[in-house]
Amino acid sequence: MKKTTQFKQLLKSQQLEFIMEAHSGLSAKIVEEAGFKGIWGSGLSLSAAMGVRDNNEASWTQVLDVLEFMSDATSIPILLDGDTGYGNFNNMRRLVQKLEQRDIAAVCIEDKLFPKTNSFINSKGQPLADIDEFCGKIKAGKDSQRDDDFSIVARIESFIAGWGLQETLKRAEAYHKAGADALLIHSKLAHCDEILAFMKEWGNRCPIVIVPTMYYNTPTDVFREAGISLVIWANHLIRTSIAAMQKTAAQIHSEQTLANVEPNVVSVKEIFRLQNADELEQAEKRYLPNKQE
Amino acid sequence: MKKTTQFKQLLKSQQLEFIMEAHSGLSAKIVEEAGFKGIWGSGLSLSAAMGVRDNNEASWTQVLDVLEFMSDATSIPILLDGDTGYGNFNNMRRLVQKLEQRDIAAVCIEDKLFPKTNSFINSKGQPLADIDEFCGKIKAGKDSQRDDDFSIVARIESFIAGWGLQETLKRAEAYHKAGADALLIHSKLAHCDEILAFMKEWGNRCPIVIVPTMYYNTPTDVFREAGISLVIWANHLIRTSIAAMQKTAAQIHSEQTLANVEPNVVSVKEIFRLQNADELEQAEKRYLPNKQE
Amino acid sequence: MKKTTQFKQLLKSQQLEFIMEAHSGLSAKIVEEAGFKGIWGSGLSLSAAMGVRDNNEASWTQVLDVLEFMSDATSIPILLDGDTGYGNFNNMRRLVQKLEQRDIAAVCIEDKLFPKTNSFINSKGQPLADIDEFCGKIKAGKDSQRDDDFSIVARIESFIAGWGLQETLKRAEAYHKAGADALLIHSKLAHCDEILAFMKEWGNRCPIVIVPTMYYNTPTDVFREAGISLVIWANHLIRTSIAAMQKTAAQIHSEQTLANVEPNVVSVKEIFRLQNADELEQAEKRYLPNKQE
Amino acid sequence: MKKTTQFKQLLKSQQLEFIMEAHSGLSAKIVEEAGFKGIWGSGLSLSAAMGVRDNNEASWTQVLDVLEFMSDATSIPILLDGDTGYGNFNNMRRLVQKLEQRDIAAVCIEDKLFPKTNSFINSKGQPLADIDEFCGKIKAGKDSQRDDDFSIVARIESFIAGWGLQETLKRAEAYHKAGADALLIHSKLAHCDEILAFMKEWGNRCPIVIVPTMYYNTPTDVFREAGISLVIWANHLIRTSIAAMQKTAAQIHSEQTLANVEPNVVSVKEIFRLQNADELEQAEKRYLPNKQE
Repeated sequence: MKKTTQFKQLLKSQQLEFIMEAHSGLSAKIVEEAGFKGIWGSGLSLSAAMGVRDNNEASWTQVLDVLEFMSDATSIPILLDGDTGYGNFNNMRRLVQKLEQRDIAAVCIEDKLFPKTNSFINSKGQPLADIDEFCGKIKAGKDSQRDDDFSIVARIESFIAGWGLQETLKRAEAYHKAGADALLIHSKLAHCDEILAFMKEWGNRCPIVIVPTMYYNTPTDVFREAGISLVIWANHLIRTSIAAMQKTAAQIHSEQTLANVEPNVVSVKEIFRLQNADELEQAEKRYLPNKQE
Repeated sequence: MKKTTQFKQLLKSQQLEFIMEAHSGLSAKIVEEAGFKGIWGSGLSLSAAMGVRDNNEASWTQVLDVLEFMSDATSIPILLDGDTGYGNFNNMRRLVQKLEQRDIAAVCIEDKLFPKTNSFINSKGQPLADIDEFCGKIKAGKDSQRDDDFSIVARIESFIAGWGLQETLKRAEAYHKAGADALLIHSKLAHCDEILAFMKEWGNRCPIVIVPTMYYNTPTDVFREAGISLVIWANHLIRTSIAAMQKTAAQIHSEQTLANVEPNVVSVKEIFRLQNADELEQAEKRYLPNKQE
Repeated sequence: MKKTTQFKQLLKSQQLEFIMEAHSGLSAKIVEEAGFKGIWGSGLSLSAAMGVRDNNEASWTQVLDVLEFMSDATSIPILLDGDTGYGNFNNMRRLVQKLEQRDIAAVCIEDKLFPKTNSFINSKGQPLADIDEFCGKIKAGKDSQRDDDFSIVARIESFIAGWGLQETLKRAEAYHKAGADALLIHSKLAHCDEILAFMKEWGNRCPIVIVPTMYYNTPTDVFREAGISLVIWANHLIRTSIAAMQKTAAQIHSEQTLANVEPNVVSVKEIFRLQNADELEQAEKRYLPNKQE
Repeated sequence: MKKTTQFKQLLKSQQLEFIMEAHSGLSAKIVEEAGFKGIWGSGLSLSAAMGVRDNNEASWTQVLDVLEFMSDATSIPILLDGDTGYGNFNNMRRLVQKLEQRDIAAVCIEDKLFPKTNSFINSKGQPLADIDEFCGKIKAGKDSQRDDDFSIVARIESFIAGWGLQETLKRAEAYHKAGADALLIHSKLAHCDEILAFMKEWGNRCPIVIVPTMYYNTPTDVFREAGISLVIWANHLIRTSIAAMQKTAAQIHSEQTLANVEPNVVSVKEIFRLQNADELEQAEKRYLPNKQE
């Protein structure tokens, strides 16, 4: 099944679905092997992995280059965290075209201004995009996709910026009408009251996506009962990799030997397995004259 | 101090020095923060992180793009694992020029054929580069560097390929004469006998670099006493990150909640710290009119 | 019609067909507007435009980036001059996958060694690829294409290297059997005797492609009567652009004014037309709130 | 002499100086060979050559990749037409750092909004950047350069947008105070009255740069007498190359032969000369064992 169709089915599924953050070809493959049905190409994680900030310091084509490796390494759909679409409606059109070429199933854009700022840094009172301008961006994206199943998720930042429920509903209504395939309602509270308040008013009009990074303690059944469609575990592979790398780097630096680290890291062979080295060995027998069996 | 000079000092240092693998801007920064004096840009790790194989599947400029992020994120020198130089002497000249522009301190090239194969996969009997051709590559690299302190490390694969000590010494002699700033003697045995045999014959003629991935159990003092200059811990950050990401992905997939994972991963704030988000906040006050204090 | 199918039809057409060199999105569009049915992505022109040599100084992904702009700007098929496939059979597999993603219709690979040398520079006695190895590369390419109509053209350099007709026929037979969709027989003589000699022996077994850069004085009907399928005008847009730019640069430098140059260059409006600026103006009315009519 | 210093001297020169547009490594080399002292990396030409529009459709790193080829191919300074700096002050800081790494001598930024629109398309009434915000961008750029001689040229679009002389002087004053090394006063009238009016009021306070694309008929002595420092011939190599390529493509398409085109295009050898192929031949003798004399 096409990746775009796979993702559309996640959005339309009758049960609560989950996708997991990745930030590289390697982490994307790990997400797939863990059993997840989709991948979140997190802007925060992608920028952090590169060593830059989540403020469009990397160009959109540099992000795309990583996404291409992620897509090539996996067979499940990727939802790209596309920030603001990296400019205006015209940049969005170009982005959609480039994502489709690279077999990325969907993109999420947020109603903020370029260059973006992370939602968890000084977000109170951040200016949001003009609603009409953002609706034009959604329409432009939808009009430029060639594959009917490519999805555009509209991310609403009004709770984050402190504009409250009415503004959120107003934006939800507008983005839904503009053609968004789903809405991502973002909140940075430690509980999910904003989300639940929205769900109560919004009802069942379109698939709703959430990112419970800050309200991680909320039991998942609460999301299920509220009628959420898709939960994004948004940055936990990069966060666990940082913890592990910091610990291992410190230990090797201090002990000046690998002896005690070796049991706690995967083997070199496991890297080879993840890289699919066996396939190349088989292929060499087929295609290299001196390697044929 | 220039990164090239820093690296040269590691090579010439009277004590045993250590550098640690990284494969991204983020991991490079973690290496620096752990206290290491240098970074190994591992070909295996870089390819694995991208989700491709260690067989020149990524182009050399794609590798360079990652190296640039790594260099920008750190102030310690990077030694790139430059495979075979990605072609002949002319590709090597171009590589050195591009590395210098990106402030990479040094490159290691190995005497194998393009496209390269990993030293730990079916390496027995692998053909090696012609000695004269490889010496030409070293000379071409040295002649094209603009910064006198840029270093070229010649990696000898003859133990790996099973050609023994005499061939290794012959190659060491040739590469040293051709101008290599150091030699990397590679071995894939579980003990360091090959290395010690080489050191005994070679003496003190130039700095020797080793990669104890397979003979990790050898006490580090053995290297010290043998007169080794530099030890490369070659792939342990990617290996620890894989272990951590596999565990965390599996746990979140199975538990469908973040609650139990949260205590074991770094905070989102720690990501911001690694990205140097504070600097941007300060800068906004200096450069954005509506943010001035 | 798909670009791959368009190109396949050029190969199978009963009449002599022609494609024209381009080296940028702009020149590709000019080729299409002139009425040509296909584009030759010349390795010589692409490297020359970048300012590097035709010896794989640009990485294969840097070439690919230009090809993507060329493909995006046009609706006719592109045949990439893919040198040696940029490595071995495995690099070829990856190349084919990446070309298909970017909607490139076909690739031509030549039986030389990486890094390649230009066929018109000291080519006498150049070593050629081992026949079996090159056949493996063709097979690997064909096995990895997803679109049945993607074409692989095998370019035979044995006339160029001075190995004569028998070697050329032997290679033609082998590459044809390995699955090449067409053969490019290259010659650097000022007349087409080598080509005609080959055609006489080869007969009609598969489509034959030629590049009459050196035997440009041969009347085209000679090719037609010989049963050639496709003629590549291989580098004439870059050569005419160099002539024009050198002349205009010299004139402006010497005269220190644009006054006499203006009548001989296209207008700025013509640039805008080639960029399709009108479409953006129309789109702004659809998608920008303050631009709506 | 460093390229940055060369450019600074052009700005400070007592005589009127000229730089010429280029859009590729090849055209940049042609500019240098024609005798010009500097190169204009035109946003219009760069985008046109890629086959995209002058509206930030190409990412800033894609532009940078072309600039790197241009810089590598030449020894004279390049002034990049950096649009709006590709975002806010922070994107500008990153741009300056990346330009310096690639040996680009200077950047020109304009006081418009991202994504930019071409100054010659519907520019009347276009919104300009807030003056304080743009000054912050200039300061941020200046503060982040490492080489004292790197130059930032501030381009004022108020004549273009129809805001008149007073607004232009106000902006000139502000950008000069903010640290701009020179001001580019842009006008799209067919005569240079706006420029002369500005020069009369502005006096000699800092170097002034102009782009006489639209007022090309003005005798150059008028600029000289008005005290202009630098004239940019902004897009004439791409315009002459388009004229030539369209003509040659049409002719070959119609005549189906190269015979009549050959005398009007440069030889293949001239391409090799521009690529510096001879140097590689010499180098092969030094570095390839089987090529040694």
